[in-house]
Amino acid sequence: MNLNTNYKNLQQSYLFSTIGKKVADFQKTNPALPIIKLGIGDVTRPLCPAVVNAMKKACDEMGKAESFRGYGPEQGYGFLKEAILNYYKEKGVSLELDEIFVSDGAKSDVGNILDLFDKDNTVLVPDPVYPVYVDTNIMDGRNIVYMNANEENGFLPMPDEAVKAGLIYLCSPNNPTGAVYTKDQLKAWVDYAIDNHAIILFDAAYEAFVRDSSLPRSIFEIEGAKKCAIEFCSFSKTAGFTGTRCGYTVVPLELESDGLSLNKMWLRRQTTKFNGVNYIVQRGAEAVFSPEGRKQIQENIDGYMENAKVIVATMKKLGIFYTGGENSPYIWLKCPEGMKSWDFFDYLLTKLSINGTPGAGFGENGEGFFRLTAFGDPEQTKEAMRRLENADIYKK
Amino acid sequence: MNLNTNYKNLQQSYLFSTIGKKVADFQKTNPALPIIKLGIGDVTRPLCPAVVNAMKKACDEMGKAESFRGYGPEQGYGFLKEAILNYYKEKGVSLELDEIFVSDGAKSDVGNILDLFDKDNTVLVPDPVYPVYVDTNIMDGRNIVYMNANEENGFLPMPDEAVKAGLIYLCSPNNPTGAVYTKDQLKAWVDYAIDNHAIILFDAAYEAFVRDSSLPRSIFEIEGAKKCAIEFCSFSKTAGFTGTRCGYTVVPLELESDGLSLNKMWLRRQTTKFNGVNYIVQRGAEAVFSPEGRKQIQENIDGYMENAKVIVATMKKLGIFYTGGENSPYIWLKCPEGMKSWDFFDYLLTKLSINGTPGAGFGENGEGFFRLTAFGDPEQTKEAMRRLENADIYKK
Repeated sequence: MNLNTNYKNLQQSYLFSTIGKKVADFQKTNPALPIIKLGIGDVTRPLCPAVVNAMKKACDEMGKAESFRGYGPEQGYGFLKEAILNYYKEKGVSLELDEIFVSDGAKSDVGNILDLFDKDNTVLVPDPVYPVYVDTNIMDGRNIVYMNANEENGFLPMPDEAVKAGLIYLCSPNNPTGAVYTKDQLKAWVDYAIDNHAIILFDAAYEAFVRDSSLPRSIFEIEGAKKCAIEFCSFSKTAGFTGTRCGYTVVPLELESDGLSLNKMWLRRQTTKFNGVNYIVQRGAEAVFSPEGRKQIQENIDGYMENAKVIVATMKKLGIFYTGGENSPYIWLKCPEGMKSWDFFDYLLTKLSINGTPGAGFGENGEGFFRLTAFGDPEQTKEAMRRLENADIYKK
Repeated sequence: MNLNTNYKNLQQSYLFSTIGKKVADFQKTNPALPIIKLGIGDVTRPLCPAVVNAMKKACDEMGKAESFRGYGPEQGYGFLKEAILNYYKEKGVSLELDEIFVSDGAKSDVGNILDLFDKDNTVLVPDPVYPVYVDTNIMDGRNIVYMNANEENGFLPMPDEAVKAGLIYLCSPNNPTGAVYTKDQLKAWVDYAIDNHAIILFDAAYEAFVRDSSLPRSIFEIEGAKKCAIEFCSFSKTAGFTGTRCGYTVVPLELESDGLSLNKMWLRRQTTKFNGVNYIVQRGAEAVFSPEGRKQIQENIDGYMENAKVIVATMKKLGIFYTGGENSPYIWLKCPEGMKSWDFFDYLLTKLSINGTPGAGFGENGEGFFRLTAFGDPEQTKEAMRRLENADIYKK
């Protein structure tokens, strides 16, 4: 028996476990101030009533013989797929039901989609980046090429004709930088992918936070994208489903290569290695798209974006370079001059009792940067910004 | 971009989709009798009240800020892992909490576990077999060697020293044959695996149906198994969770090779490509182990096993060779002399309006055999057996 020794190439610790440990250790030493968590990108607002009611009703259905549901379709129930299809229609994107696959979250699908691709593909990944894109490819032994996202390009790297890759990861609105590609920028990526026979793996988990209507919320708003892109989306941030687990992936029917349909391959992958999402959760996800659900989740999103505004205001006040915050729950900021990410992390934690995420954890270009999130409590977010504005480090 | 062309080696249609289509087509032609479904291994009894109540309570918790849960531990909540640990204790198996991984079902984990193993392993698979074991390895391009399960060995193949493999799939109680290994037989497999530095992937999804207390319900009841086995278990059949989705996988801490801990590798795989099971479902799964839950699911299992008894009685009455049915919800029977599986399928469907599963769908040795399941309605199961006992084909 031989193990997959690519696992030896993974870095030992996972970013958020390291942070969790540091915070827990610090908590034990009784900090003077209560710790404010603006770190891991987890939501804090409860599920909205429309979702809770729909799930409780589904629980009751599951408890009665006449309405009990056993195995469902691996690709998701029609009722949910239709609601997703209509949601895309509002963005001006026309899909087929067979192009939509319901999953237990974008993270699973972003990882599992790699089953469809050969190990010898070169993978183009932005730096800084959500670590899952990198780790899943290291596990498979693929060659990873990084593209620089930095202050100069506003953390939105563009195609470089000198670089060739089979798989391209794009995330917009971006995690961790909050930066959002324009339609023209995405068009350049689509053109590059088609010219180079590459596939764009497009992570749209934060699309619901886009407020500027000129910015794309789906790569399929871009002409030609159905020939070269797969899109991952999630209810996690949109509707507070981080602990409820539901997402969806769009694999266009047009995607073909080497005599194989990627849509059919993914269907086969999912019917073989997955058994569909819990029925109760799918009813909850359906309720997200109901009129009450839409209204209720929008209130939550608006609440988070109020936090983002508060953080952005402090960035402006202190003259700190930042991206995100306007169309994204993430604010990506430059550490005080010369300070490294983990040093700034330690400073914020031990001096101000603020827990954020060091940019260096997302890649080399993240060094010297830091991520704050808008998912915290409104009062606590304001308090954190007050602490920051009064911090020694920002007193010149 | 290069695709994983191993997908070209998969057989086009998936067994249960083909059956589904045949049944749907026949239904359109208005059969004289209502179709009795004894085919796909899906449960029919609703979730028990203890589970429904626990899940509804959890829905309410998720709707309130003070009890809302976001991201949970990828490996499962402590409350559920402890309940599983205690369940193993009753079987005489002592586990560590870190050896237990909660998942969204055995099918996912049986497929995903292959991420840990190199593509160049030879895989030993029984024939007939649950198709997922085969398809997941074809997708990875692994060499598959089949071991013959047949009438002579009671569909319980034993190790052959002349055959070498790195990965060994065992399923007991078996799907599709219902056959159950004894402790001595499993000991021989464990010894063989240790001698050959192989890993046994042990599918225990049907352990709750074992009634004979001398038969093992976990491979970890066998001495040495923690050095060579990973066990997959599920609430699907035990507690009717086929549409609710929860299972668990035990990866012993002792499992090591090539300087790598399989337990640590699986933890890394799950934290990278999975985000844990829905909190509500984990509360439901916890309730399966409560005193009321235990009593209620046992009533369901007993009900299914009554069906199995009815089927077994007909097998005996008609003098049909069969395995299973006593410690398993599956009854694996020999088709009437000379008849092939799919011909018998067509006969049962079109003449008796009984929907079962052709043995040939599970491998070459399944040809001439047929699977019936005990998951049907009690009255319908009796009616199906009456039809069978009066069938022309059994009139000599």
